[in-house]
Amino acid sequence: MDLVFGERGLIPAIVQDRLTGQVRMLAYANREALARTLSTGRATFFSRSRGELWEKGATSGNVIHVSAVVADCDADALLYLADPTGPTCHTGSPSCFFRRVGEDGLAAESGVDAAAFLETLEREIASRKDSSAA
Amino acid sequence: MDLVFGERGLIPAIVQDRLTGQVRMLAYANREALARTLSTGRATFFSRSRGELWEKGATSGNVIHVSAVVADCDADALLYLADPTGPTCHTGSPSCFFRRVGEDGLAAESGVDAAAFLETLEREIASRKDSSAA
Repeated sequence: MDLVFGERGLIPAIVQDRLTGQVRMLAYANREALARTLSTGRATFFSRSRGELWEKGATSGNVIHVSAVVADCDADALLYLADPTGPTCHTGSPSCFFRRVGEDGLAAESGVDAAAFLETLEREIASRKDSSAA
Repeated sequence: MDLVFGERGLIPAIVQDRLTGQVRMLAYANREALARTLSTGRATFFSRSRGELWEKGATSGNVIHVSAVVADCDADALLYLADPTGPTCHTGSPSCFFRRVGEDGLAAESGVDAAAFLETLEREIASRKDSSAA
């Protein structure tokens, strides 16, 4: 089925580290950015602020290698399963998602451990191994 | 910092299973939907097609319990770290992201194993344990 490019011809694209599961960033692609991502294997987006294509890491070197592009049920959002080179965020953080949102709806400067998910899973795997060995 | 609610007062919200790392869906929240999510702990969105708030699972029972809301660096996208009840997609698929996008830019009916990520990680952990034991 055709992908649904919405307002301004853009579709949101989530970038996820395919090995750790960490969600790295969310950006937007137009048809041309997606075509370049698929043909080059490097995540390319459309910058809404600059109004132009940009290949992630073209200047910083922190390229994102995309091994699969997955669309959702109604084909209006994308998930890039990827192997990121270096930190993804321009702040130097591995993931752009690091601001804990409080009950007041405000985003903190930090507060989320980028590795928390992986640690959670490792603990879960360890506890299952322990219980199956017992 | 304040969150940036964009066009139509909406901010995209990625739902991720906090234990498996699986990205389940992407939907949109306005201020009220986010406030309800934070106060109830259950993922609530704004339906762009119906023009109303909807609590995920209110009719299906497949509620998504949100343990943390994380904003990205420029505070214009959200990540919900969550414990989903049952499948998230209305198709019955665990995740809404299941359509492999081909090199032609078209979304297939299926083609992505929802568990692929977790299996990849489990293999990686097992291989590291083997190599550290050797």
